[in-house]
Amino acid sequence: MHRYGQQNYNHPNQYQSHQSHNSTPQYSYQGGPPTYQRGPPPGADPQLWQWFSAVDLDRSGSISVTELQTALVNGFDLDTVKMLMGLFDLDRSGTINFQEFAGLWKYISDWQGVFRHFDRDRSGSIEGRELAEALQSFGYSLSPPLLTLIEHKYASEPSTGYGPPPGITFDRFVRACVAVKTLTEAFQRVDNDRDGWVQLSYDQFMSIVLSAP
Amino acid sequence: MHRYGQQNYNHPNQYQSHQSHNSTPQYSYQGGPPTYQRGPPPGADPQLWQWFSAVDLDRSGSISVTELQTALVNGFDLDTVKMLMGLFDLDRSGTINFQEFAGLWKYISDWQGVFRHFDRDRSGSIEGRELAEALQSFGYSLSPPLLTLIEHKYASEPSTGYGPPPGITFDRFVRACVAVKTLTEAFQRVDNDRDGWVQLSYDQFMSIVLSAP
Repeated sequence: MHRYGQQNYNHPNQYQSHQSHNSTPQYSYQGGPPTYQRGPPPGADPQLWQWFSAVDLDRSGSISVTELQTALVNGFDLDTVKMLMGLFDLDRSGTINFQEFAGLWKYISDWQGVFRHFDRDRSGSIEGRELAEALQSFGYSLSPPLLTLIEHKYASEPSTGYGPPPGITFDRFVRACVAVKTLTEAFQRVDNDRDGWVQLSYDQFMSIVLSAP
Repeated sequence: MHRYGQQNYNHPNQYQSHQSHNSTPQYSYQGGPPTYQRGPPPGADPQLWQWFSAVDLDRSGSISVTELQTALVNGFDLDTVKMLMGLFDLDRSGTINFQEFAGLWKYISDWQGVFRHFDRDRSGSIEGRELAEALQSFGYSLSPPLLTLIEHKYASEPSTGYGPPPGITFDRFVRACVAVKTLTEAFQRVDNDRDGWVQLSYDQFMSIVLSAP
């Protein structure tokens, strides 16, 4: 049996937990434009509400893509911001409400823990060996050439050809890991007999690839 | 026979032309740090030299990633800039010299022509129908669901769920087209009997996907 996707590290970033967390929204849609809530909703973490309000620059009661991108001061890539919106804008409104923000905030905090854990040399970016360790611990046994490809693709600068490739900064590390997870799971869904081989039509192939972040 | 990759539109952005154009470098590496050339190299287009010098902010005689990103005032994505560096930094120095810049400039100008041609409503971005027409004219017969996937993936903002998805701006349009081309050609290389089906190992699959921009 092929070993590509055994999740032997119980890492905190499983979509499911967020989805179930967000599947019982506290508020129902009242119709009309949302009104700004002056105080935190009942039972909300006051610290989290403070953060949410800080990001919600126009006081609309929800966070737009632009506000999210402004808030992610490290300069997250548009593709990473889009991936996060896709994961947490569960009602597909194009904005993140407070409920959705709580899930997003936890997700980013959890990933920050993962990033710090694997950034062994505290360089602020993930280099080759650190990337290999991280993906290995998530249960992905990737060949050295694949690891090199990922290292270059998600590096925060083009490689120079001299010396090791530049490292992967936080937002691109998250995207790299989610991409490997998404692609591996899509492959596994087609690989019914789990022999590590699949037969794909052009349409299936393109559809799998273009669905990954 | 499957029709996915017939290039019936002789579009100007074939890698080959640039590579052959750049395969006879005028300068050989002399050792030591490059010295700044005050005037254009013999035979150089003076206008092009002026643009090159404008982008080469630190007067090093070559353009770094940062300078390139600064120059692309429309705010090209890092991934698009990396793709362009990968196509035109032929000596893998991590910088673009004047020779390489000429190829890059032509490539971007040609794509601007393509973009303007397909941006029928002059909105400054490529929408669903325009994207379908562009890819069709390049010879890619993609199913409507695939076109929708591309439209969302390369849109310059997340979709809101209401109304049509936001359009694709210039740099992401170039990346989308190059990605479709790269993926289709990689698929075709494996599809020896051209029946539109391939058998792929997990390693092959990941390697193809991660090699696309």
